[in-house]
Amino acid sequence: VRVIGIDPGLTTTGYAVVDRDAGRLKPVGFGVLRTSPSRSAAERLAELRAGLLDVMVEHRPGVAAVEQVFFNNNAQTAMTVGQASGIALAAAAEQGMEVFCYTPTEVKQSVVGFGAATKRQVQAMVASLLMLDLPPKSPDAADACALAICHLNRSGLNRAIREALG
Amino acid sequence: VRVIGIDPGLTTTGYAVVDRDAGRLKPVGFGVLRTSPSRSAAERLAELRAGLLDVMVEHRPGVAAVEQVFFNNNAQTAMTVGQASGIALAAAAEQGMEVFCYTPTEVKQSVVGFGAATKRQVQAMVASLLMLDLPPKSPDAADACALAICHLNRSGLNRAIREALG
Repeated sequence: VRVIGIDPGLTTTGYAVVDRDAGRLKPVGFGVLRTSPSRSAAERLAELRAGLLDVMVEHRPGVAAVEQVFFNNNAQTAMTVGQASGIALAAAAEQGMEVFCYTPTEVKQSVVGFGAATKRQVQAMVASLLMLDLPPKSPDAADACALAICHLNRSGLNRAIREALG
Repeated sequence: VRVIGIDPGLTTTGYAVVDRDAGRLKPVGFGVLRTSPSRSAAERLAELRAGLLDVMVEHRPGVAAVEQVFFNNNAQTAMTVGQASGIALAAAAEQGMEVFCYTPTEVKQSVVGFGAATKRQVQAMVASLLMLDLPPKSPDAADACALAICHLNRSGLNRAIREALG
């Protein structure tokens, strides 16, 4: 199974492609897509789409795990995150992927073990689970890794349950 | 000037292509794009994108006037509207259009003359301004017409001011 985790944002979008092979997690590639601050929101969303499609076409993941938009105190941020997440969801569906959404709390619960984990804890746990020498520098890339791991954990668990139940 | 007005939504997106030719407004085409309720949000956003691109490629507008996302009491609706608006903005930018956003209040103020106009008043005024025999049936299509008219009104006014100032 090859999963792309996507943490969408208008300014910075984290992505991470992770394989599960014989029960082991293997990082294929991760990083951030940044858009040009001097351009309009519409142009930046088009840039984000182009960048995501490049990653998807290069790595051909079969599943996307996208951060579920949540509404915080800042309506402006929530709006642009919603717009960026729309771009990510449509691009993944167009590429034929199955798409799953997870809330930040679900991801932290699955990857770190508790839903209120700090960014630094997520970065450290991602580095440990993916056997990286150093944690991803960008918290957005680390969050994307955590999204992919969360999906693989859950789908692995579901498969184990199915097999145990015969 | 050819403008496409877009009133984005995950279920129903209104669109309207309107020309201004020698100071007269001419409707080129309007309607709604509906997505399949049985499909996932990601698939529906991809459907919306494909439908919008069809309209854009057919009519080649130079400018897009998109409803500005606003946050209402219903966070779920606000989220899906934000995602759909992201799709519309990126598609317009990719097609090389200038993109403008207007709030519902700005649109009603510009088209009907007061910001608290009802849907029915918008439908009637759109029919009158575009010299339609009947108002657009769908309120979403009427809102898209009003967005295009709002942009043409404002840009016409700005041009007149520039010319008057010499």
